[in-house]
Amino acid sequence: MIKKIVSTSLLLSVIASASLLDDAKKAGLKPIPTDKNELLKLIDNPNNKLNDAKIELGKDLYFEPRLSKSNLISCNTCHNLATGGVDGVSAAIGHKWTANPHHLNSPTVYNAVFMSRQFWDGRSPDLEDQAQGPMQAAPEMAISKEMAVDRISSMPEYKEMFKKAFGDDKISFKHIADAIGAFERTLVTPSRFDEFLNGKEDALTPEEKKGLKTFIDKGCTACHTGVGIGGSMQKFPLVKPYKYANVGDFKGDKNGMVKTPTLRNILQTAPYYHNGAVWDIKEAIKIMGETQLGINLTDDEVKDIATFFKALDGKMPTVEYPHLPAVTTSTPKPEAN
Amino acid sequence: MIKKIVSTSLLLSVIASASLLDDAKKAGLKPIPTDKNELLKLIDNPNNKLNDAKIELGKDLYFEPRLSKSNLISCNTCHNLATGGVDGVSAAIGHKWTANPHHLNSPTVYNAVFMSRQFWDGRSPDLEDQAQGPMQAAPEMAISKEMAVDRISSMPEYKEMFKKAFGDDKISFKHIADAIGAFERTLVTPSRFDEFLNGKEDALTPEEKKGLKTFIDKGCTACHTGVGIGGSMQKFPLVKPYKYANVGDFKGDKNGMVKTPTLRNILQTAPYYHNGAVWDIKEAIKIMGETQLGINLTDDEVKDIATFFKALDGKMPTVEYPHLPAVTTSTPKPEAN
Repeated sequence: MIKKIVSTSLLLSVIASASLLDDAKKAGLKPIPTDKNELLKLIDNPNNKLNDAKIELGKDLYFEPRLSKSNLISCNTCHNLATGGVDGVSAAIGHKWTANPHHLNSPTVYNAVFMSRQFWDGRSPDLEDQAQGPMQAAPEMAISKEMAVDRISSMPEYKEMFKKAFGDDKISFKHIADAIGAFERTLVTPSRFDEFLNGKEDALTPEEKKGLKTFIDKGCTACHTGVGIGGSMQKFPLVKPYKYANVGDFKGDKNGMVKTPTLRNILQTAPYYHNGAVWDIKEAIKIMGETQLGINLTDDEVKDIATFFKALDGKMPTVEYPHLPAVTTSTPKPEAN
Repeated sequence: MIKKIVSTSLLLSVIASASLLDDAKKAGLKPIPTDKNELLKLIDNPNNKLNDAKIELGKDLYFEPRLSKSNLISCNTCHNLATGGVDGVSAAIGHKWTANPHHLNSPTVYNAVFMSRQFWDGRSPDLEDQAQGPMQAAPEMAISKEMAVDRISSMPEYKEMFKKAFGDDKISFKHIADAIGAFERTLVTPSRFDEFLNGKEDALTPEEKKGLKTFIDKGCTACHTGVGIGGSMQKFPLVKPYKYANVGDFKGDKNGMVKTPTLRNILQTAPYYHNGAVWDIKEAIKIMGETQLGINLTDDEVKDIATFFKALDGKMPTVEYPHLPAVTTSTPKPEAN
């Protein structure tokens, strides 16, 4: 008899899972492809085709502090691959310890390839274009295109690497950014939730499934959907004012649209929101309910959703820390001011 | 006849090499041991015995920006493993973009285990003791012992790692520094010069051998000797004033003694001298001849010595970039000011 009850409850749970999977798919949630070719199709850029040499070069440049005016800041400073692809501070801090003038928070580089646009105001169409911005921005890496090219060109090992990556050893600012973009395209983190979406029913715990159901039922998937579980431009705030709107002066693009952050690895990327004003994921969820859905999520619903987020912690790519070329006597010197 | 000439000159060259090797050994130059047990004996610390868990934990902590008040600076910021173990700027820059108040240059962490003392004034006996300094120094990582311990203790994954490393999951500031020191002890870089010292005669090019001979004959090995090719405390400047003494106010310890930098990977660690005032290795060599040996090295001699330095470029250890634990709601927040 006990056996029968167990079997029945198991059966019910299977049916529930099947229906939940169905609901997730209907809500537009999609897995990171497990098939290498499918994944490649999804992450490649027709204008900057991936190849191994370009990815390897891009990795070096991603960690390259000589791409900042001071020699002290690299892409990895604010988008630290060791800490979820972010810097763990509210507003990004760059050259001369300058905080982002709009008090903007550094978004994660992991899975950024799945975002439809780059930057919080979506002003950039892709990672290659995005990478050009922070290098040149005065409060970030503060380097001129010319100095970036001069620095990299002064180290002979780089010439060889650019030749392998682009078939041309002439180093341009565009190719520097293209290589960085290529590397960033590989930074995807498949999670247990992807396994679930691919049909592995027990990839999620019962509690996580409950959270996923709440996540879908409450309407979070209106914006947090697709492979990126986010990444589209949305009106923010939509229904009610944002509690911390006074931190910084960012109001989205000219239509008030703001890029939806990915929820992949969200438990690793505090603080939250474009202005990094919220440190607790539960508060972040609660605020989202208010501003975007106009609902008051109960503490239990918030907790359930936060539990689901555990399943979004992905497998981080293994990155061997690079050994970069040595400067030469012709390398332009760092300027700390 | 031609054959005979070639053989004779080859023979002479072999004799010359043998005698050069002999001279190098007489001058106290020693290879990094190739035997794992011998190496372990040399790099281990009886008060902080190496083990794999401790080294792995130390690596994480070496790259851990949450060990700085701001969340932005790690050991690796100034002693960057990607760029020869240094930061490539004259004076170290830390918290709030503050330059080292004495205009001191960050020494390389590679092979630092072979130095008899740590810091330019030799005030620290070993790497474990050294690591405590920059974390707390206001112009560096600017964290208090208490905040460092609170930050690390707030991330549960670290508790497990400390238990494996030290047999105790109670996290102390001393154990944080001990783990970092343990990791740093593994950062040794065997080079072609070590192969030469181990009897592989053709490990050095004829030009490098010529440079080594000049290096020994001119007396550079008075200080740049041992496994570290440097690392002892020496009077500086010894014979004549240092040309750039006006940059910063560092005068060594109370007796004017300054730690001799290692020459391993020296071509990767510009700028040179305690105050990072010299960018060109040739100028650095020339100044050394004047200040320490009281001799005027010719341009050819300088060039020969610089050529020998190529043989000191070592094999850098492979370091997998870590994925660090996520902060929790109890983790003390970063303070940028």
